[in-house]
Amino acid sequence: MNQAITHFIAICSDSIGETAEAVVQATLRQFELPNTEIKRYMNVREEDELTELMEEVARRGGFVAYTLVQPELREVIREEAVRLNIRTVDIMGPMMQAFADTFNDYPKRLPGLLHRLDDSYFRRVEAMEFAVQYDDGKDVSAILKADIILLGVSRISKTPLSMFLAHKGYKTVNFPIVPEMSPPSQLREVTNGNIIGLTIEPEHLLKIRSERLKVMGLPHQVQYASLERIQEELDYALSLYTELGCPVIDVTDKAIEESAGLIMNFLK
Amino acid sequence: MNQAITHFIAICSDSIGETAEAVVQATLRQFELPNTEIKRYMNVREEDELTELMEEVARRGGFVAYTLVQPELREVIREEAVRLNIRTVDIMGPMMQAFADTFNDYPKRLPGLLHRLDDSYFRRVEAMEFAVQYDDGKDVSAILKADIILLGVSRISKTPLSMFLAHKGYKTVNFPIVPEMSPPSQLREVTNGNIIGLTIEPEHLLKIRSERLKVMGLPHQVQYASLERIQEELDYALSLYTELGCPVIDVTDKAIEESAGLIMNFLK
Repeated sequence: MNQAITHFIAICSDSIGETAEAVVQATLRQFELPNTEIKRYMNVREEDELTELMEEVARRGGFVAYTLVQPELREVIREEAVRLNIRTVDIMGPMMQAFADTFNDYPKRLPGLLHRLDDSYFRRVEAMEFAVQYDDGKDVSAILKADIILLGVSRISKTPLSMFLAHKGYKTVNFPIVPEMSPPSQLREVTNGNIIGLTIEPEHLLKIRSERLKVMGLPHQVQYASLERIQEELDYALSLYTELGCPVIDVTDKAIEESAGLIMNFLK
Repeated sequence: MNQAITHFIAICSDSIGETAEAVVQATLRQFELPNTEIKRYMNVREEDELTELMEEVARRGGFVAYTLVQPELREVIREEAVRLNIRTVDIMGPMMQAFADTFNDYPKRLPGLLHRLDDSYFRRVEAMEFAVQYDDGKDVSAILKADIILLGVSRISKTPLSMFLAHKGYKTVNFPIVPEMSPPSQLREVTNGNIIGLTIEPEHLLKIRSERLKVMGLPHQVQYASLERIQEELDYALSLYTELGCPVIDVTDKAIEESAGLIMNFLK
């Protein structure tokens, strides 16, 4: 059922608007506004484009979040905001000012992400390919090549976490933990503290596994989605983590980004 | 060689600081400040923690970017900023105000990401697992199940792009294009316009492939990393895209996020 859009937010960027959208989404989580449309205007470089989008916002009664670095465009959006009585939020301006004032430096004012084929680019691509190649315990030899080794029972979100960490440049592998299967012996050779054990509240995992079975068209009443079996698996995993002496992250109620943030903090 | 850190930026968040870091990184790209340390203070909930971090910033001479939603903590950071003469940037405050003023609503002021096991969570997890499972043309049957089908020659960044799009909730598959190999016949059955052809400037790809060979310890002078071969592959790919009538994205000089943004725009 599509509900009518009642709130409108425009993102105006000289690049792709990813940064502005991150701030809009974080703020949106603080409000109860389910029927909100967020529209991105990307690669805005001309005054005409600005005028057009500001008129759409005026018509629809929303506000504008912008990331524009060129002084002329910043001036135009401020003028149009006054002319049309539209509220605007300047996402990067205050921070550019803080940089300039604190570090006595001037911004380059070049729009776009200024992407370069630098070491960081190659590292991220390599990490993502690594994570795909060695997902779900496909090859134990990867353990000794990885920056991060994630352990956890089925459906605890190992794959999405691995991909997110890889996107941040960490070569990540993950291994499923099952009571009936001995963990790879290579885990005991890892000495640099990059093994992370994942855990979760049993009721939470029950919900995820039941949902999974539903999607697969399987009956709910199998052992896999029973609280007793889940508890047994989680107990076994925790005893293994203790034996390995690795840090344990509880992913219950955490977004992927949040769990990944905690893991990256452990590595620092 | 480690260079001395000369600029210090503190991120202070009642959650993980991901949003603030996005704004800091976008701003940093506008300056030439290679020796900058960005330090995240996550899950800040107590006044003591705030005072401690502000004193560190005062000592090290940087500034603070913060995302705090609770009024008491916001008040403390403002007071400490005055007391210690530190510049602060409030990442979410101006937008929370714009929301409140424009939509006549009040923020919930709950710290954290408010993660829920909602449809969007399940869709993203499923999309990431799908992307991992069907990466690099592993199974042509996936073509008819995918939201996005990426085509491109070797090393054009199909895997990282697929993972990024999957992280945004799109089930993505990718297929390598090689002149010597017929493309899967299923491509011609796709009618909903979700095939995207990737292209790149030959010199750019040459640099990426040469780097790849270096990492693998292979000689540079192979056909794979010759400009003639690359041109032949790209020409073949472009003729296939024309035949399929799919949009073409040039990934030259674009960050993964930027190419992904363009692709998502095509789908809308």
